[in-house]
Amino acid sequence: MSIALVILGAGKGTRMKSDLPKVLHQIAGAPMLVHAMKAGAVLEPARTVVVAGHGYDHVKAAVNDFDPDATIVMQAEQKGTAHAVDMARDALSDFDGDVIVLFGDTPFVRPETLEKMAAARGESAVVVLGFEAADPGKYGRLVMNGSSLEAIVEFADASDEQRAITFCNSGVMLADREALFAMISAVEANNAQDEYYLTDIVGIAHKNGLAVTAVACDEEETLGVNSRVHLSQAEAIFQNRARLELMENGITLQQPDSVMLSHDTVIGRDTIVEPNVYFGPGVTVESGAHIRAFSHLEGCHVARDSVVGPYARLRPGAELAEGVKIGNFVEVKNAQLEAGAKINHLSYIGDATIGADTNVGAGTITCNYDGVMKHHTTIGARAFIGSSTMLVAPVQIGDDAMTASGSVITKDVPAEALALGRAKQVNKSGLAVKLFEMLKLTKAKRDLESK
Amino acid sequence: MSIALVILGAGKGTRMKSDLPKVLHQIAGAPMLVHAMKAGAVLEPARTVVVAGHGYDHVKAAVNDFDPDATIVMQAEQKGTAHAVDMARDALSDFDGDVIVLFGDTPFVRPETLEKMAAARGESAVVVLGFEAADPGKYGRLVMNGSSLEAIVEFADASDEQRAITFCNSGVMLADREALFAMISAVEANNAQDEYYLTDIVGIAHKNGLAVTAVACDEEETLGVNSRVHLSQAEAIFQNRARLELMENGITLQQPDSVMLSHDTVIGRDTIVEPNVYFGPGVTVESGAHIRAFSHLEGCHVARDSVVGPYARLRPGAELAEGVKIGNFVEVKNAQLEAGAKINHLSYIGDATIGADTNVGAGTITCNYDGVMKHHTTIGARAFIGSSTMLVAPVQIGDDAMTASGSVITKDVPAEALALGRAKQVNKSGLAVKLFEMLKLTKAKRDLESK
Amino acid sequence: MSIALVILGAGKGTRMKSDLPKVLHQIAGAPMLVHAMKAGAVLEPARTVVVAGHGYDHVKAAVNDFDPDATIVMQAEQKGTAHAVDMARDALSDFDGDVIVLFGDTPFVRPETLEKMAAARGESAVVVLGFEAADPGKYGRLVMNGSSLEAIVEFADASDEQRAITFCNSGVMLADREALFAMISAVEANNAQDEYYLTDIVGIAHKNGLAVTAVACDEEETLGVNSRVHLSQAEAIFQNRARLELMENGITLQQPDSVMLSHDTVIGRDTIVEPNVYFGPGVTVESGAHIRAFSHLEGCHVARDSVVGPYARLRPGAELAEGVKIGNFVEVKNAQLEAGAKINHLSYIGDATIGADTNVGAGTITCNYDGVMKHHTTIGARAFIGSSTMLVAPVQIGDDAMTASGSVITKDVPAEALALGRAKQVNKSGLAVKLFEMLKLTKAKRDLESK
Repeated sequence: MSIALVILGAGKGTRMKSDLPKVLHQIAGAPMLVHAMKAGAVLEPARTVVVAGHGYDHVKAAVNDFDPDATIVMQAEQKGTAHAVDMARDALSDFDGDVIVLFGDTPFVRPETLEKMAAARGESAVVVLGFEAADPGKYGRLVMNGSSLEAIVEFADASDEQRAITFCNSGVMLADREALFAMISAVEANNAQDEYYLTDIVGIAHKNGLAVTAVACDEEETLGVNSRVHLSQAEAIFQNRARLELMENGITLQQPDSVMLSHDTVIGRDTIVEPNVYFGPGVTVESGAHIRAFSHLEGCHVARDSVVGPYARLRPGAELAEGVKIGNFVEVKNAQLEAGAKINHLSYIGDATIGADTNVGAGTITCNYDGVMKHHTTIGARAFIGSSTMLVAPVQIGDDAMTASGSVITKDVPAEALALGRAKQVNKSGLAVKLFEMLKLTKAKRDLESK
Repeated sequence: MSIALVILGAGKGTRMKSDLPKVLHQIAGAPMLVHAMKAGAVLEPARTVVVAGHGYDHVKAAVNDFDPDATIVMQAEQKGTAHAVDMARDALSDFDGDVIVLFGDTPFVRPETLEKMAAARGESAVVVLGFEAADPGKYGRLVMNGSSLEAIVEFADASDEQRAITFCNSGVMLADREALFAMISAVEANNAQDEYYLTDIVGIAHKNGLAVTAVACDEEETLGVNSRVHLSQAEAIFQNRARLELMENGITLQQPDSVMLSHDTVIGRDTIVEPNVYFGPGVTVESGAHIRAFSHLEGCHVARDSVVGPYARLRPGAELAEGVKIGNFVEVKNAQLEAGAKINHLSYIGDATIGADTNVGAGTITCNYDGVMKHHTTIGARAFIGSSTMLVAPVQIGDDAMTASGSVITKDVPAEALALGRAKQVNKSGLAVKLFEMLKLTKAKRDLESK
Repeated sequence: MSIALVILGAGKGTRMKSDLPKVLHQIAGAPMLVHAMKAGAVLEPARTVVVAGHGYDHVKAAVNDFDPDATIVMQAEQKGTAHAVDMARDALSDFDGDVIVLFGDTPFVRPETLEKMAAARGESAVVVLGFEAADPGKYGRLVMNGSSLEAIVEFADASDEQRAITFCNSGVMLADREALFAMISAVEANNAQDEYYLTDIVGIAHKNGLAVTAVACDEEETLGVNSRVHLSQAEAIFQNRARLELMENGITLQQPDSVMLSHDTVIGRDTIVEPNVYFGPGVTVESGAHIRAFSHLEGCHVARDSVVGPYARLRPGAELAEGVKIGNFVEVKNAQLEAGAKINHLSYIGDATIGADTNVGAGTITCNYDGVMKHHTTIGARAFIGSSTMLVAPVQIGDDAMTASGSVITKDVPAEALALGRAKQVNKSGLAVKLFEMLKLTKAKRDLESK
């Protein structure tokens, strides 16, 4: 059965107290909305329609950044969930298959849960996702009769017997496209808020003799984010799951709670991650690497047996081959480091290629920006870059070449050559002491004057 | 009614195992004592008297640093709480109004609680602060009769019926100044410790036909700090409260537990704070800023849309205008950065003014200290400071000026000029290889000799 | 009574999913196995025998690194605990005394517990270590009769009455050497796994009329590590214990959970440790020091009143005398810093001696490596090293000497002299603007061409 995702993301999220639309607030480096889209991807949807409203342009940009083929439709006024889904009607008018409705602020529905819903469709026109609530409170109750979902009863309308039910409504639904929109047309806004509720289609389905069923997921999957506190809780849930998964795969997290992962972090077996490491989006680390404390990685690749940190910052485009060492207070951006290259201290390497077994001395800087353009630095293999070498790009250093420490390199250095660019040292006897005395005198005078 | 604060802070705090007087140990960047003073400030006290003993001079300095008008009196021997309050008698002899007695090691009494006490004074000569104890243990019990506090009964003296009471004594009291000191004169040291207890004035008040009442606060407010473990618990309580408050105001804390705040941290709505950020005292951040991981801020201001970190250190006097960028391994101290200025990598900027849209290259250092005095560096707007420029202060760089990377700038650079100060590069063909061979030979020789 | 330790460490630890033998995974900077050895050290063992199997060579290296006198024996096939202990038979054949059997993956048995076992030996030939289990589950039960341990009954074989016993077997045993190996010879592999169980010797002892007793420890002490999740839990248990102990000794940990300690960290009273500090192995800090946030220390010594960090990295061999200051983004390795020396910003100091009250400017680098050998830098007292000085080692700077900022120092600088090594600054009027215009033109051309 072909499937279309409809993801609702029009709400403002007033309790977030934010100018950013609620569904764009991030968890683990991706907007909440994208988490819902990623979960839905397991169904290999033929179409994805996102219903946006507040911050439409921002939502559209974020959605298309993740999936350029997704359609974004506008819900100008927010008149309830049925109204929101109805906005997708035209975009899906030529679509033959099922529609699943997800919520952009409910990022944790598991792919397996969605597969279970798809599998449950069978004879039923509608499949509702429910959960066993630890404390059902004011959630809508799912009244089951065997496998048939008889009704969704709002708490306010529920009898005592119904209130005793702990199987509750998550809001997520799956239905045949044609039936869904036909039923939505029949939904009425019979409530104080004058809103159209998607849950009403369960009653409408029964009126029309259509079967409805429900499947269950864990309560945690249905966590909705409505405030910054919820957002931090959702982040913590994500992180704890992801950390556990890494440990189960044979990665050592010395202090798991202090390691932050992204939605797409990949780490190989027997890699050791020390405390306080931040993995931004787009990081892959191979097996047997060692990521030391206080390191910050984004959009980079670390090959096996590399050692990173402490205090290393790998920015997008940093590619470390096997056995590379990046030490403390070193920033690497858009640079290929070949096997065995070493940058141990206090350096900035941006827009560069560094050959195998080359040693880059402390305080080295690739001067990649001239105020207008960025330029590339190429260093060959087995080179020795002296401390505090300024590499004014574009510039090339050949294999086995050397630069003297403190040199400003503006011209290419041939292979095997030594490049120097520094002034000669002169010692002025006794001058340090004289200078100090002079400075102290000046200060004494100033102090007197300022009285 | 005019109010005087009396804050007791004479104790040594033996269990702290410290040379520092107990009340000077810090929570959220301020001595515990100052937290009590800050809470008391809500009553707009006409006088503040701090009773100090151990480490008198240190306590006096800390108190006057926060409130230069506060009076510090000496309690040379610690002979109980009534004795401690009695030390304030002379300082308040000409004061007409109420006295509230707080404890310097009980930092969490809420301002609202103190207001409630002041409001409860009415007909009662004495107002005692109580709390409902989850586990009353050996706390003194407050025996109430309607709104009248009949007695404070120590656990040792309590009947079974009284021990069943869960409303307990916090020690905090409010009373008319004249009545208070009169009653204190009547307190006797009838106990093994030979101490004078302030709680005894409740009985004395009743003997003199004075009304006594009690108001209730949360147990957490009465947390007393007696050990380093307590101190860390108090810190955690403060931090959790402050983090929650930020989130409720629309600030994203990606990992709240890893963000440390100070007693006076102010952060605007829609600012994002990544994990592992440390806010020392005196930090204000406007809305829509982004404080990245591993940043450390103290005594600084960050305007809207600025991006700070990762690994940025803003020290006192760092003032960032709108849209400023401070990148990794950058330290800024006592410096004004105008709108759009950028310092992205590995720099030290101290005692400086940097103009709008100026770009400061990696490895730039303001050489502000000559060994005796500190000097100022002024950089104009739209300037381009090449990587690893040494700015030997005092020095001025004009608008639209440029420095070549690796230059030592000792003289002013006029607007629009390019300043260079570096040696010419020379490549010595084949010399790198020869040098390496020579070094390897030397090493081989040394290794042989050392056998 | 003379004692021999036998530590079992041959298992692969399949659930660790690691190429490293299980007992070499680290807790608090030391392999698990070493924790067991350290606990055993309280008994002042005359002999230590470690039974290794998987990763024999690695285990041998780690064991001898901690205790060069330990004997490592091979258990090629893992055929049960009795079989494992049997591997130590030859190594102990000439040993007259008791043998205690510990497990390399059970790192938390307390020294006091082992002392209790030794004290309990008395008339009993065998002493078994038990624990009161909160949830005894499938642990073997210890059936006591007064102080006599009658039997260890496996869960599968236990009667309902025996299953109600909560005193369980830890596996740790103490026995007379001769008796132990005689009994091991009598153990049979009567089980599906075809393994020889050490617990069987209790029954054998009774058959031979030997007395057996048991002593109790806390359940936490018997925690075995079988997965990375267990490893992180064990790490957390260690850290929490160690943090608490520090606080009880009068050290302030502002945020204890964020401070990582090693098995051998020593910190003096009244030292303040800010959040996010990492103590690797071999660190000693004296009293009254201040370790600021985001610092990373390994193998170093910090004397009283020193201030370290934030973002300071002290590597092995860093020795800080009293009142030394190491500031942000500074790395120190194998260097002696005399009293009052200051290195405040962005520096690398390796293989160096720095005299009292010397000030090292920002961006200073000891160029200690020439590509082949490491060399030493010696700086005298009261010297002033200008910012971004490159000290090309081997090199000596005398007392009261000064280097100009941006200098490359290749020759010794006599006491009181000023050393300069930098080019003269030239200002080229209007050239910055022209250069920018040219660059913008070039860019525009390129942008056109790339269309």
